[in-house]
Amino acid sequence: MTENVRAYAAVSATSPLGPYAIQRRSTRQDDVEIEIFYCGVCHSDLHTARNDWGWTSYPIVPGHEMIGRVVSVGAKVTRFKIGDAVGVGCMVDACGHCAPCEQGHEQHCVEGATFTYGGVDRIDGTPTHGGYSEKIVVKQDFVVRVPDNLDLSAAAPLLCAGITTWSPLKNAKVGPGSKVAVVGLGGLGHMAIKLAKALGAEVTLFTRSAGKEADARRLGAHKVVLSTDERQMAAVAGSFDLIVDTVPYAHDLNPYIPTLAFKGTLVLVGYLGPLEPALNSVPMVLGGKAVAGSLIGGIPATQELLDFCGQHGIVSDVEVISMHDINAAYERMLKSDVKYRFVIDMASLKNEA
Amino acid sequence: MTENVRAYAAVSATSPLGPYAIQRRSTRQDDVEIEIFYCGVCHSDLHTARNDWGWTSYPIVPGHEMIGRVVSVGAKVTRFKIGDAVGVGCMVDACGHCAPCEQGHEQHCVEGATFTYGGVDRIDGTPTHGGYSEKIVVKQDFVVRVPDNLDLSAAAPLLCAGITTWSPLKNAKVGPGSKVAVVGLGGLGHMAIKLAKALGAEVTLFTRSAGKEADARRLGAHKVVLSTDERQMAAVAGSFDLIVDTVPYAHDLNPYIPTLAFKGTLVLVGYLGPLEPALNSVPMVLGGKAVAGSLIGGIPATQELLDFCGQHGIVSDVEVISMHDINAAYERMLKSDVKYRFVIDMASLKNEA
Ligand SMILES: [Zn+2]
Ligand SMILES: [Zn+2]
Ligand SMILES: [Zn+2]
Ligand SMILES: [Zn+2]
Repeated sequence: MTENVRAYAAVSATSPLGPYAIQRRSTRQDDVEIEIFYCGVCHSDLHTARNDWGWTSYPIVPGHEMIGRVVSVGAKVTRFKIGDAVGVGCMVDACGHCAPCEQGHEQHCVEGATFTYGGVDRIDGTPTHGGYSEKIVVKQDFVVRVPDNLDLSAAAPLLCAGITTWSPLKNAKVGPGSKVAVVGLGGLGHMAIKLAKALGAEVTLFTRSAGKEADARRLGAHKVVLSTDERQMAAVAGSFDLIVDTVPYAHDLNPYIPTLAFKGTLVLVGYLGPLEPALNSVPMVLGGKAVAGSLIGGIPATQELLDFCGQHGIVSDVEVISMHDINAAYERMLKSDVKYRFVIDMASLKNEA
Repeated sequence: MTENVRAYAAVSATSPLGPYAIQRRSTRQDDVEIEIFYCGVCHSDLHTARNDWGWTSYPIVPGHEMIGRVVSVGAKVTRFKIGDAVGVGCMVDACGHCAPCEQGHEQHCVEGATFTYGGVDRIDGTPTHGGYSEKIVVKQDFVVRVPDNLDLSAAAPLLCAGITTWSPLKNAKVGPGSKVAVVGLGGLGHMAIKLAKALGAEVTLFTRSAGKEADARRLGAHKVVLSTDERQMAAVAGSFDLIVDTVPYAHDLNPYIPTLAFKGTLVLVGYLGPLEPALNSVPMVLGGKAVAGSLIGGIPATQELLDFCGQHGIVSDVEVISMHDINAAYERMLKSDVKYRFVIDMASLKNEA
């Protein structure tokens, strides 16, 4: 029993995304069927559509920053009812019984989490398809509640950009008195600033372009440091408990390491690949500093983030687009020409053939 | 007021160490004068004597793993009395009022700690000279007590090799249930195994030579993994909360990262330089893993370590040598031909001209 729904898919690494019909399963007993209102556009969508990481199978329907409303529920669903505002992020299932799953870090499921798109359903073996579609059917354990006071379009990016930056902040126990720096001001970076500020930290943006200062301050940064200016960099030596590095391409980490305080950590959340030029261990060893990676966050942390954002009135700065604008949006993202996240209005999909 | 004492010094980067007379100051009010019985031989001694790091000024008297007895004390010394068994490690002073100093991390003193050799005395500006000498005069705050039950020669390496490996173990809160791996079985590595074992961890040695297995098990390792064997490496994927990497030269960290558990950290304690081949961020980001550096440890931690070693009867495995054997010992260290630390019997210095 399946339902045909409208979606947008890439059918090869080189073809633009276009209309594509997919099947969604009927709800299982613990499933929630969701009408998708908005879906944020993540860099991972683009990289996956174009097979930049080499692991894509086609057709692929991207999208893992979904917000919508529950339209039907399975017989054993207890946590949601029809009409609830809900979100779905990067994962739709995991084994549920390994140590990371039991600790709520499903993204590190030992058996491998089932990702929202490009994954394989654990029960029927069908490929998973993401949020560039009218509807989705997801196990209730992987659905989160969206606070009533949040704008649904602007809240969508919390499901990936938000949780990705929330995890290192929470892991480092950021709060009043913490000094946090953010590298890069894009979809992830602007969320890192807002969240660190709301947690009570003193927030610094590292940027390569002086033009970002006003915006960074509006978002909550207390200080903006030009990373190309050696004097400015020297002035913040030994400062930061945490640096959230959101840059999605290869870049030199060495200028940032000396700006960490003793026991401080630079956490990579955006870049997958070799650290070139080579990271030098001298300031790490002599200064007791660390470089770490962090991947999205688990379901409990995602709910915690949404609740926190509800309490503090935090959402993303978004530019809402129609589904048929997605290919142009990808091109603009590659030029960092978006403040700060594209979100697709899924109502636009209903106008498609 | 100074006293001439016998020592061994290098007078240039290319000359062997030889007899050299130095002056030790009379005790200041808060100083302790120590007759040095034993001094461990650290890789840093060799690198500094030969100016491998480019920061040596000559003449240099190495040695920062000293154990001896108090022979006189200044008027305001409260913590030690004549006859006490004491140790001096890598530092002899620091500013005392910066945040790291106040937290007992004097090695990260914002003004720069005064290192035991190659440093400059904070009061009279004279160069500091290390433990390859009959006596030393040190501010009481940088002197630690040595438990009565420890063999003094074998305890000497605790002052550098011991505290260097103790710090990452304590920082990671290693205890029963922890899984710790050690890379490299030398002066640092053999201490890391003993200490992690005594803290209650399950300990694994990574090694490139199968011949080290028996010794590793004798020292306390539960498991030995040949790092060149891909199957053995795959079998420990996702295992370790902490890897203490003691290797003192450039080496590929990439094979070790996947063996870390989620939130696990590989801590470099022995290598200063670029991480080549390039560290790949993929397993760090996807797995939530970190690479950090750690430098010796503060005075409170050093005392804590010595007390712990007293309680658990832990010392280094040492080969006691005479002072005039130091140049041959350096050559053997470069070939890793020592199990596991050379310690100089300073009585031998009295026989020198
Ligand atoms: Zn994403
Ligand atoms: Zn699992
Ligand atoms: Zn040393
Ligand atoms: Zn200080």
